[in-house]
Amino acid sequence: MKINTLENKSVQKIDIVKVKEDSSFPYTDDISVEEPLEIRISYGPKDQRITKNISVTMRTPGNDAELAAGFLFTEGIISGSHEIQNIDHPQAECSRNRENIIEVELTENFVPHLKNVDRNFYTTSSCGVCGKGSIESIKTVSTFQHIEREEHILLFDVLYQLAGNLQSFQNNFSATGGIHASGIFNFEGELLALREDVGRHNALDKLIGHALFTGQLPLKDKILVLSGRASFELIQKAAMAGISVVAAIGAPSSLAVDVAKEFDMTLLGFLRDNRFNIYNESSFHKITEK
Amino acid sequence: MKINTLENKSVQKIDIVKVKEDSSFPYTDDISVEEPLEIRISYGPKDQRITKNISVTMRTPGNDAELAAGFLFTEGIISGSHEIQNIDHPQAECSRNRENIIEVELTENFVPHLKNVDRNFYTTSSCGVCGKGSIESIKTVSTFQHIEREEHILLFDVLYQLAGNLQSFQNNFSATGGIHASGIFNFEGELLALREDVGRHNALDKLIGHALFTGQLPLKDKILVLSGRASFELIQKAAMAGISVVAAIGAPSSLAVDVAKEFDMTLLGFLRDNRFNIYNESSFHKITEK
Repeated sequence: MKINTLENKSVQKIDIVKVKEDSSFPYTDDISVEEPLEIRISYGPKDQRITKNISVTMRTPGNDAELAAGFLFTEGIISGSHEIQNIDHPQAECSRNRENIIEVELTENFVPHLKNVDRNFYTTSSCGVCGKGSIESIKTVSTFQHIEREEHILLFDVLYQLAGNLQSFQNNFSATGGIHASGIFNFEGELLALREDVGRHNALDKLIGHALFTGQLPLKDKILVLSGRASFELIQKAAMAGISVVAAIGAPSSLAVDVAKEFDMTLLGFLRDNRFNIYNESSFHKITEK
Repeated sequence: MKINTLENKSVQKIDIVKVKEDSSFPYTDDISVEEPLEIRISYGPKDQRITKNISVTMRTPGNDAELAAGFLFTEGIISGSHEIQNIDHPQAECSRNRENIIEVELTENFVPHLKNVDRNFYTTSSCGVCGKGSIESIKTVSTFQHIEREEHILLFDVLYQLAGNLQSFQNNFSATGGIHASGIFNFEGELLALREDVGRHNALDKLIGHALFTGQLPLKDKILVLSGRASFELIQKAAMAGISVVAAIGAPSSLAVDVAKEFDMTLLGFLRDNRFNIYNESSFHKITEK
């Protein structure tokens, strides 16, 4: 088995503003990189090789060959490393994303168990694997891309309350301690709606579905609070709903920050214990002590 | 718009054993339910309606209509609630899972934006939406289903160390504070390998890929430690790799516990501060103070 993978950054430096108690200061922070990886397999006899896209997953670059092989194994498509001939990043159709495509070449006599593929995997269009491409595709479909926006002041004290408010409402809502929450707050810090789910994207879809049913879209002068980390997928969904402020209790990924910048959204992370980090400040917002 | 959804349990009672310091006691705990939801749409003129499966997501039951509508909206398939005519749980092909299928009937003149569907959604086989069905499908493909197993004693003190060990290695590994980790430990509590990713399933696939490359599969006398919650997907992957003990820093879901029981795996949750909960104790394991 030959493995030839590109070395990619898993951590990225980013200039942020740290806010703590009544002060704020610039800071260079480390942030986890999130990029899509398209996993392909090729199989069949030498003169009739078939290449098939199996999955696109949002991952942190690094150990991509392990990720691809582990994925094929845990999904039952291969049963051992002896079925792998070679792992490589193939030449991509577009110029910039070779590191985000990985091809696992299977041995000539091995027939992969592809009936398992239909069970539950991502399918993908031909070029969804550049982060930029994904962001562009959101812009194309977003209903609220050109809505009129107003300027707003966001006060430290209001933002500090959000984490505790989400937590106390969550305690009333369920008692399992094992579930993600998404909450919508107004700019005074009052909770308007909260939804929970074992899947963080589901909690947010439920919340946005609620806003859809009650005629509240776009949620443009509202703050979305996430109980965990902020991934690309969550910020993408927030952008679709016209949300202009996202505050996460956990860390954002690199691609989450990219989407927030592209859509001029305010993105806060590590919101807890009278602290937070500003990853992006919308041109319509001013985050200030008073 | 008419909405007719079934009320399902989002929280379930479960008998567990709580372990704290040097003692243990039985306890009835609340656990978040995780079940698959298949989202379908139907569209087109009255006499030529087309039904299409759009996605299967592992969700906590409750607010399913919001989830389906929010998903269709945030993925750009619909642009508002005026395009929805009716939301219902249709009669399922098999008898027991009607609550796990939801159909969004779109208005007759509306053409859904289905080109967006190909971007990144789950596809599914015709009947993957009973939890039991999903568990059966793992059994079918698992290479290590019938491996010989040995009896083992798991000591409280060794288990208590795991969380701290994972955390301290993670601190060295990355400094972002925003990333999931999966670690493999031996029964003496020593870390053998650790992988990180913004996606928890990716961290585990990387770890299992590493074991695949280094000839360490099945990982049968090893402990998998998860930095966050334990979902169905993670326990399914662990089962595929022959792992017999999973210890999560966070909570498990109902379906995670079901898989652990079905595969006779030991499953621990809330492993932190010299405490943990036993959700399932394998017949091959004895968890004891000394």
